[in-house]
Amino acid sequence: MTLTTVPFDDDHFHEECGVFGVFGHAEAAALTALGLHALQHRGQEAAGIVTYDGAQFHAHRGLGQVGENFSSPAVMERLPGNAAIGHNRYATTGEVAIRNVQPLFGDFEFGGLAICHNGNLTNSYQLRNQLVRRGSLFQSTSDTEVIIHLIATSLRRTVLERMVDSLRQVEGAYSLVALSKEGLIGVRDPLGVRPLVLGKLGDSHVLASETVALDIIGADFVRDVEPGEIVVINESGVQSHHPFGNRPSRFCVFEYIYFARPDSIVEGTGVYEVRKRIGMELARETPVEADTVIPVPDSGVPAALGYSLESGIPFELGIIRNHYVGRTFIEPTDQIRHLGVKLKHNANRRHIEGKRVVLVDDSIVRGTTSLKIVEMVRQAGAKEVHMRISSPPTNNSCFYGIATPEREKLLASRFDTEGMAKFIGADSLAFVSIDGLYRALGEVKRDPKAPRYCDACFTGDYPIPLLDFEQGSLATNLSLMNEIA
Amino acid sequence: MTLTTVPFDDDHFHEECGVFGVFGHAEAAALTALGLHALQHRGQEAAGIVTYDGAQFHAHRGLGQVGENFSSPAVMERLPGNAAIGHNRYATTGEVAIRNVQPLFGDFEFGGLAICHNGNLTNSYQLRNQLVRRGSLFQSTSDTEVIIHLIATSLRRTVLERMVDSLRQVEGAYSLVALSKEGLIGVRDPLGVRPLVLGKLGDSHVLASETVALDIIGADFVRDVEPGEIVVINESGVQSHHPFGNRPSRFCVFEYIYFARPDSIVEGTGVYEVRKRIGMELARETPVEADTVIPVPDSGVPAALGYSLESGIPFELGIIRNHYVGRTFIEPTDQIRHLGVKLKHNANRRHIEGKRVVLVDDSIVRGTTSLKIVEMVRQAGAKEVHMRISSPPTNNSCFYGIATPEREKLLASRFDTEGMAKFIGADSLAFVSIDGLYRALGEVKRDPKAPRYCDACFTGDYPIPLLDFEQGSLATNLSLMNEIA
Amino acid sequence: MTLTTVPFDDDHFHEECGVFGVFGHAEAAALTALGLHALQHRGQEAAGIVTYDGAQFHAHRGLGQVGENFSSPAVMERLPGNAAIGHNRYATTGEVAIRNVQPLFGDFEFGGLAICHNGNLTNSYQLRNQLVRRGSLFQSTSDTEVIIHLIATSLRRTVLERMVDSLRQVEGAYSLVALSKEGLIGVRDPLGVRPLVLGKLGDSHVLASETVALDIIGADFVRDVEPGEIVVINESGVQSHHPFGNRPSRFCVFEYIYFARPDSIVEGTGVYEVRKRIGMELARETPVEADTVIPVPDSGVPAALGYSLESGIPFELGIIRNHYVGRTFIEPTDQIRHLGVKLKHNANRRHIEGKRVVLVDDSIVRGTTSLKIVEMVRQAGAKEVHMRISSPPTNNSCFYGIATPEREKLLASRFDTEGMAKFIGADSLAFVSIDGLYRALGEVKRDPKAPRYCDACFTGDYPIPLLDFEQGSLATNLSLMNEIA
Amino acid sequence: MTLTTVPFDDDHFHEECGVFGVFGHAEAAALTALGLHALQHRGQEAAGIVTYDGAQFHAHRGLGQVGENFSSPAVMERLPGNAAIGHNRYATTGEVAIRNVQPLFGDFEFGGLAICHNGNLTNSYQLRNQLVRRGSLFQSTSDTEVIIHLIATSLRRTVLERMVDSLRQVEGAYSLVALSKEGLIGVRDPLGVRPLVLGKLGDSHVLASETVALDIIGADFVRDVEPGEIVVINESGVQSHHPFGNRPSRFCVFEYIYFARPDSIVEGTGVYEVRKRIGMELARETPVEADTVIPVPDSGVPAALGYSLESGIPFELGIIRNHYVGRTFIEPTDQIRHLGVKLKHNANRRHIEGKRVVLVDDSIVRGTTSLKIVEMVRQAGAKEVHMRISSPPTNNSCFYGIATPEREKLLASRFDTEGMAKFIGADSLAFVSIDGLYRALGEVKRDPKAPRYCDACFTGDYPIPLLDFEQGSLATNLSLMNEIA
Repeated sequence: MTLTTVPFDDDHFHEECGVFGVFGHAEAAALTALGLHALQHRGQEAAGIVTYDGAQFHAHRGLGQVGENFSSPAVMERLPGNAAIGHNRYATTGEVAIRNVQPLFGDFEFGGLAICHNGNLTNSYQLRNQLVRRGSLFQSTSDTEVIIHLIATSLRRTVLERMVDSLRQVEGAYSLVALSKEGLIGVRDPLGVRPLVLGKLGDSHVLASETVALDIIGADFVRDVEPGEIVVINESGVQSHHPFGNRPSRFCVFEYIYFARPDSIVEGTGVYEVRKRIGMELARETPVEADTVIPVPDSGVPAALGYSLESGIPFELGIIRNHYVGRTFIEPTDQIRHLGVKLKHNANRRHIEGKRVVLVDDSIVRGTTSLKIVEMVRQAGAKEVHMRISSPPTNNSCFYGIATPEREKLLASRFDTEGMAKFIGADSLAFVSIDGLYRALGEVKRDPKAPRYCDACFTGDYPIPLLDFEQGSLATNLSLMNEIA
Repeated sequence: MTLTTVPFDDDHFHEECGVFGVFGHAEAAALTALGLHALQHRGQEAAGIVTYDGAQFHAHRGLGQVGENFSSPAVMERLPGNAAIGHNRYATTGEVAIRNVQPLFGDFEFGGLAICHNGNLTNSYQLRNQLVRRGSLFQSTSDTEVIIHLIATSLRRTVLERMVDSLRQVEGAYSLVALSKEGLIGVRDPLGVRPLVLGKLGDSHVLASETVALDIIGADFVRDVEPGEIVVINESGVQSHHPFGNRPSRFCVFEYIYFARPDSIVEGTGVYEVRKRIGMELARETPVEADTVIPVPDSGVPAALGYSLESGIPFELGIIRNHYVGRTFIEPTDQIRHLGVKLKHNANRRHIEGKRVVLVDDSIVRGTTSLKIVEMVRQAGAKEVHMRISSPPTNNSCFYGIATPEREKLLASRFDTEGMAKFIGADSLAFVSIDGLYRALGEVKRDPKAPRYCDACFTGDYPIPLLDFEQGSLATNLSLMNEIA
Repeated sequence: MTLTTVPFDDDHFHEECGVFGVFGHAEAAALTALGLHALQHRGQEAAGIVTYDGAQFHAHRGLGQVGENFSSPAVMERLPGNAAIGHNRYATTGEVAIRNVQPLFGDFEFGGLAICHNGNLTNSYQLRNQLVRRGSLFQSTSDTEVIIHLIATSLRRTVLERMVDSLRQVEGAYSLVALSKEGLIGVRDPLGVRPLVLGKLGDSHVLASETVALDIIGADFVRDVEPGEIVVINESGVQSHHPFGNRPSRFCVFEYIYFARPDSIVEGTGVYEVRKRIGMELARETPVEADTVIPVPDSGVPAALGYSLESGIPFELGIIRNHYVGRTFIEPTDQIRHLGVKLKHNANRRHIEGKRVVLVDDSIVRGTTSLKIVEMVRQAGAKEVHMRISSPPTNNSCFYGIATPEREKLLASRFDTEGMAKFIGADSLAFVSIDGLYRALGEVKRDPKAPRYCDACFTGDYPIPLLDFEQGSLATNLSLMNEIA
Repeated sequence: MTLTTVPFDDDHFHEECGVFGVFGHAEAAALTALGLHALQHRGQEAAGIVTYDGAQFHAHRGLGQVGENFSSPAVMERLPGNAAIGHNRYATTGEVAIRNVQPLFGDFEFGGLAICHNGNLTNSYQLRNQLVRRGSLFQSTSDTEVIIHLIATSLRRTVLERMVDSLRQVEGAYSLVALSKEGLIGVRDPLGVRPLVLGKLGDSHVLASETVALDIIGADFVRDVEPGEIVVINESGVQSHHPFGNRPSRFCVFEYIYFARPDSIVEGTGVYEVRKRIGMELARETPVEADTVIPVPDSGVPAALGYSLESGIPFELGIIRNHYVGRTFIEPTDQIRHLGVKLKHNANRRHIEGKRVVLVDDSIVRGTTSLKIVEMVRQAGAKEVHMRISSPPTNNSCFYGIATPEREKLLASRFDTEGMAKFIGADSLAFVSIDGLYRALGEVKRDPKAPRYCDACFTGDYPIPLLDFEQGSLATNLSLMNEIA
């Protein structure tokens, strides 16, 4: 009944989660709330924090953004303890039920364990089935709970051993942050697909999805957690474990293109800088005669600056974005909808009328937003509209923790570039090449035998086996219970 | 910070729960809400309903009374299906968290099962420990979840076999109502301590804690579910099973004294009538010269009528109760508190002044309310105050599903009758004898070798072993997680 | 969409309001909340409190009962000051908008004045029109605001003079409580139709609609405020004014029959006692051969006790009322409704089956509830049902502050007694006579030339002119603004 | 207790309100909600809509943003009618009470009138006093209510005549939108200080504070409402009235600098374009040797682009703003606060380290935010920090509808430019000159005898007399009533 304005409406791929943890600080819960606030772009549908006070765990979880759930002093006072973990969630399946809000918690024989994760397991459905068969009862439909039950039924003794035991059985891309009486635990999957960084704030240690969560609390960046590494943080400091051997890293390239905040430093490289360099590559690869370079705000801005810099075509903020867009807004009736309501973007006619425009955006997913924006720019009087995209065509779904439509809905799987240009109504359309993308990242080009990044969405080259998918068993309806919020 | 007015403040024992289930009616959820409303006196802190539509289960659970959670048409529409079960909860441990609101639900290998119960298991702590040790993760602190995990880990195949397997391992007093794709299931523990009745509404069958839940929907009373009986209700009708053999019944006598609604018929006997007869016994056993018989409202009214009838002393409503007392009210400051604020009761001075008063109440637990009421009656000008109690002294805690203070807080375990009279400030105090109580129930007297009822709170004769209690392992803090509501 | 259970469903006349005020106590707001709680039966739809701290006024008003609005310490702390007034509201017109929740407040030239009232003005519509014509803008649809604008536009100087000036222009029945920097003010209309009592708590003075509001805070009853009296209470004590001359009092007789709480003392007479005496009159006037006397709970209980006492027929609680009925409950579908759902009352079959029953109730308004109750008692097996009513037939609407249906909906204006008996399905029906009612109140009989009470609902003898009504201008839609709550 | 993130924290002057109205469209309420959404930047603390259905007015008003109050279909359905007005409010006095949420409404002798306004009256306090003296009772503390009471007490007959009568008595800057049975009315004050535009959507007419509110619903811009003009819009079309004579316009220059959205067209000129031209003027007036031009986002971006363009120094997004900042957030404890928490801005170290930075912002009010941002940029490694401001120093408070601190808190009134540079910690600081500002607006320079704009905040040249202020009677506490939300 209501028109959602959750990010998917932007026609972007979307990050599913952000994680944060801190150990050794009297204000652990407040620091976690701040860290999650800095990571809000990774998930806006739910937020949760669990603290540990040395004896008991304390949790508060709720639907909505961090500020909506953690702004009351009364709530913060009920989250005591000097260790905490937290989670922002972006719901992929549409089930926005409270039972799925992380961190999840279990009372194990060895004590309590709270856990949250960013990513996706590719064999969770099969594992879940086996666990149910031997008597485990699931309370959520989240794949994180598979890890929890594997830990519960492990025959090992310590938390760490049980966790390793559990993770050896799962396939997928994940960055985990967990909290037990043995300390704060961080894990990155063996290929390091999803990000996780380690920071330091005085004597306290911090784990977070991105460096911006360190910046907001004034913590120093120490290093990335390594692919396949488990860090255990407690009063003795940081212990590092590598139980899964060593494999070359395959970090998600889309973090550079769209997911990460522009002010984050990812694997040693500034995201804003990469985006600008992609724009420069784009200008070199697919130049066009034009009067102005206009970004689709906000994500297209850095690449547009690069395009303008390289091409010499003046940069203008020709499209303005309304930042007061909340979660929902009135459902336009048909009568209103065909007026072409512009809830989010508005063209700045003065800078468009009579001009040849280069529009720069970061990606095209289903093409619906691009179509509207090109139409809006034409109505504002553009003589020509040339769309430039700072990523290669997205041909394939992601199974590693990113919300993507099914393959057949991806515009790039339906048309070639010319067909896509026609669909969105542009005079020309061009994507940066896969090699251009790697160049912007400092490589000579993509090495097809050992690519430096996970770029499956562009290439179809999936570095982690898609076990559930291949068996046709994608987890769409995991519980017979329909919980009314 | 706020003064609770939940029933425990009345200084009564309190029923922990009411259950209801219906099979074969298009308005199953609405009937369940009405049934729970009629059973509201058995638990006011939370209410929940689960329906089954032949394919999926649908749940809504919330803190507060039935009317607060099930008054919105939008909620009711989202509870489709022609079978439903529901539960009213009275929280004993003080944990009023949403995770404990019943019915509980599990996704089992054989399908979904929702379950709720009235009663208490006396070995749940030990079973829980064993289950955790072999990998079961508990999501609530309710003992109902022990039954669910026993069903999950059972090696039997059908729901019924697994449930029998599960119940063979538990000790305690319980009336269960469950819902699965095989139908609506009702179980009463082998001694039939807690009540459960079977009713019929057209072609539909109904299970409920008391007959008043049949009356409200116009259903006919069929019979009590028998001690140790399991009934399975589905399209084929009602199947009865007796897997636990036959033992003499030990129904809870306190249901007659206080818990059940006066208009309920319990095991073939009207509750209001029993209460009046106890009052008559009381008048015969402990007569007193007085001018007026005044009940402590509302629970003392029927016994006071009986006392008046037998003694010939006129009955008057000399104490008025304010029925607009909700869950919480302002916390009186010390300054106000010592004014003797009368939130709930007010004496009717005209009928008390200068008179010798017989006050009739149903029980004395800690004595705090009796003390205040005697004082209020004296301030209203009573010449003498004689307290008569329509139950024997309550010396012992209940472990079978009733909220009771620890033994040392029970006034009857601290003083003899004379000491109790002094404590509450009465000129005389008398309790009905245990034999008098049995007489009012139609027996000749209590047979100490085979008593007809569970009367452990008066006699200390516990018919079901107190396994957890004897091992000192009463389940007071079952989870390390402190969930913020 | 939802089935309301507000009192009107009981098919009773209903009191519109309760008022309370206190001067000279550090906990003025808390005392007011307690006083309003004791007066909750006079209005459950909204509650408000205004305090004065010597410099500024502080208000909190909300829809719902007292406990729902004044249970939070945070709210109470924001109501400082040692003087306060408060109001419970029962909405008659169906407009439950926040703009009508009292006390109302105005910033006058002389300072602030908060005011609330119980009653109804019979010329408010005409006055309102004149005030609008000369430029007054109304913010509510309440007739109390007419008094406020009359005070604002008065040419007198002091609050008291302006208030007298204002009240000289209004006709109606009212008890006012007001708060200004000159103190707490109480006014009763010249005929004293509505009640108002003066109490004392230490050095503080209290005004309240009924004595039960004194009892709850331990205050002593001093006296009734006299008809036409204005009391001004401040640091100098209580000053009494009689600006309207002296006329014989015409107190509302229905306060004795139904409105007032049974433990209230009204004009020196205990309400419970009066009700019992009416029952005795009823037994003398209209005896019947029967086996049991059963009250319709709760309001019929005292009269039933009197009937039983006088007739010697045994009294039984044959109908049980469910006290857990909140403001709203699920809307029964048609399918459920015709099951005869008994949300509020349930017959106790054991005490009814095979018996000749005398049912005692306090009044019959539209007859809808009586019809259902007689039917319920018959279904429970009664051999005969004889209805006895502890008031004369209610033939006429009230215009003095009581919510009544239009005259044509009153059963007594549609049928004679025999017709009414047939309508409700009783074997016999009888009302107490008007003289019997006066006898129960201690008079010899009603003096038609100078009746002691306002009994217009029975006799049509209206002691205050019905100015708006006679001009056909009953205020049904006073504002063009439809405010969405 | 909570850290507010309402715009004032940005250390900006703030617009107090946005207004919108539509006549002749079946979806009037929905269009108004959309229009208010586009004007959300003009006020985020409250929103309200009143519709007129030809017979009755319907209102919904609430604290919070438009989306929070007008997203429910249930609310929209209860706002029928083909004419509507709406209002966004920014509360200046700190009183965020519901009584002040506009549109205000009055029931007049001639019918209903709803009214809302953007601006401020400079003699409202005196008028209010006179109105109270003759018996008007105010319900809000808003100066809009003064206009309403002047209309109510006017002796003229039609709405239009009464409104003219009323406005002749007020001094101030205002754009009014009103709704009566005679149609939709728009008024701009005689100097046209505040904006108001007229648009057309099919056969419907629209009034709005800015053109972006036309864009969002696809309406065409017709013209600005002229200074001193009253437009009345109904079935007969648009009638224009000029009852106040003709004076040269003095539009608020700060609308160009900061208030208006960059995509708005104000008095025929694009706001974004003006801002860029100011940046170019700034580069010409106060050049500096530097490596990068960095805007303070979002308001500094256009001027920074202009500065970069004119100076040739590369533009970089060196500071990233977190757009997920809601109304409130956790209150940092002292321990956390001194960590330098960056809730809103984060420096992009890669683009700052080792560089000479030109920071461009639109204005400095108290200097608190500038100080923090300069410090943040230095901590990110800037070698030099040169601050450039795209407005002249703000020396004076605004009395025409803009929220400004008292004069003594304005940094520019405490220090000269050098002192200000020192206070904020910049190596150099420069403001655009007042003539430079006028040049960017297309004038040769400011004509001191007849300046084209209201620029009182820079020059102290107040075009409308400050009557209340000069009498020392600024309306700070207009009511004795403290309303608890």
